[in-house]
Amino acid sequence: MTGLTSIAIHGGAGTILKGSLTPELEVLYLAALKKAAQVGNAILRNGGSSIDAVVAAVVELEDCPLFNAGKGAVFNHLGQHELDASIMEGKTLDAGAVCGVRHVRNPILLARAVMEKSDHVILSGEGAEMFAKALSLPFEDDAYFYTEERYRQWQKLRGTEVFEMDHTPDGRNKMGTVGAVALDMSGNLAAATSTGGMTNKKYGRIGDTPVIGAGTYANNTTCAVSCTGHGELFIRSVVAYDISCLMSYKGLSLKQACDIVVMDKLVSIQGEGGLIAVDAAGNIEMPFNSEGMYRGSIDQNGKEFYGIYKL
Amino acid sequence: MTGLTSIAIHGGAGTILKGSLTPELEVLYLAALKKAAQVGNAILRNGGSSIDAVVAAVVELEDCPLFNAGKGAVFNHLGQHELDASIMEGKTLDAGAVCGVRHVRNPILLARAVMEKSDHVILSGEGAEMFAKALSLPFEDDAYFYTEERYRQWQKLRGTEVFEMDHTPDGRNKMGTVGAVALDMSGNLAAATSTGGMTNKKYGRIGDTPVIGAGTYANNTTCAVSCTGHGELFIRSVVAYDISCLMSYKGLSLKQACDIVVMDKLVSIQGEGGLIAVDAAGNIEMPFNSEGMYRGSIDQNGKEFYGIYKL
Repeated sequence: MTGLTSIAIHGGAGTILKGSLTPELEVLYLAALKKAAQVGNAILRNGGSSIDAVVAAVVELEDCPLFNAGKGAVFNHLGQHELDASIMEGKTLDAGAVCGVRHVRNPILLARAVMEKSDHVILSGEGAEMFAKALSLPFEDDAYFYTEERYRQWQKLRGTEVFEMDHTPDGRNKMGTVGAVALDMSGNLAAATSTGGMTNKKYGRIGDTPVIGAGTYANNTTCAVSCTGHGELFIRSVVAYDISCLMSYKGLSLKQACDIVVMDKLVSIQGEGGLIAVDAAGNIEMPFNSEGMYRGSIDQNGKEFYGIYKL
Repeated sequence: MTGLTSIAIHGGAGTILKGSLTPELEVLYLAALKKAAQVGNAILRNGGSSIDAVVAAVVELEDCPLFNAGKGAVFNHLGQHELDASIMEGKTLDAGAVCGVRHVRNPILLARAVMEKSDHVILSGEGAEMFAKALSLPFEDDAYFYTEERYRQWQKLRGTEVFEMDHTPDGRNKMGTVGAVALDMSGNLAAATSTGGMTNKKYGRIGDTPVIGAGTYANNTTCAVSCTGHGELFIRSVVAYDISCLMSYKGLSLKQACDIVVMDKLVSIQGEGGLIAVDAAGNIEMPFNSEGMYRGSIDQNGKEFYGIYKL
């Protein structure tokens, strides 16, 4: 029982240039990030678990139409919303993930159920939806997930072979994924990630979000990590577990490990994106090599930070 | 150009006790392993690439009804065959994977196509099948994948909630997955893995086979790894990449890294199974913590080994 708590959240990284968001939209994004971080932090400060905190924060972000996860998810090439999510617990190394699910209101709740109520780690597609139904998790029809902005993005690509990471020409939102990492008073770390993937995606494409070790990883002996970026390159780089291994096997600090993976290794293969991470001492890192990353944190002293662009 | 070549293959690990196979079946298994290793080795000895070698070896094993991949894959709870596969190239860190595909004759060829002919790493389900059709890869009807042995295994579980890793009470074949790793004359490493998963599996369950970093990993600076075992625990342990990190970050030998991951870390969480691995110097390791593992190798001196049980 250290008593320390820390939480960090993200709402996606990408080409978010200063000036590309209207002042009104900036205010909305910052308020949404603050709400999610505070919901998770309140759980931690009340002695709740890091798993409860990251789930609550990610549910907030899934329910917010500004982010590409849950409500507000991008459209695939058939005009559907296919959602991926994953979660991992640092104490037990238990993990759960779902990929390619439709109509599930909060994919992160389903990922948690896979972790806690099944013998499996990854469930996919209709099978995962059957599991959600068996547990009576909330479902929504297509209208719930619809947002005008995402529809407009899809209309521009519809019928083409082009897919994109919810990038818009005005430079907003290139890689939309949401996530949270937290340390609770008992010293337990947790990480959670959720996404709608890429606009106009085809062929059942799956990114790094539901891949334990790539998009999400947590281990009490090192750190908890949630990623956002060009998923294919994050998978090939096993990004989240790489941070953990650099700490565990090379004795690096969280900051040193993040710098090497995000600013050196990922940059060298044009792996655009970022991540949020917290270690067992409550240190928080939120590195990104893209123009911006929607992010927020509340550290062990209660100090809050919310940001969109590079500092 | 080192001129050295090495190849190792596996056909699954599990509770394969001496005496549980008839002498006739033992002969069949060993002959099938030998054929696959020799097909891959011939490519390497002729100056072919490690990617061509591992693909050819895995195609042999997929086409052989004795193994749980391609023809001979287990039945899921609906009596279908859902197949997963992945491949990775150590020089470029390119990777490809498919999960939950049906009717695709050789899932490893589809995984290779994802790597080489798409911008993605993982494609799933019907989407992945559409991609295979667009490339005119061979499809087969259900009858092709049917084997009496797998049907008998399924009949015993059909209608129950029990799933199993193609274990039979006579102790054969608990974890059926096939794989190959190779080093070619140019010093390039490659790894490939393919599976039918678990008998009577539900809910679109995905194991470690299509997860880059867990079931498959290759990096010219360290090693190539293909796993077989209790997939959920292999995912949570990020097994294949862990071997690579122990070599890269701690300076361990391939053998030392394999011992720690398979005999120590996996054993401590009851993660039954094994793996095959080859490093950049052509060293081969085939550790397993289960009763047996179908395996074979041809080293840099042309020395062949085929085995089923512990030595």
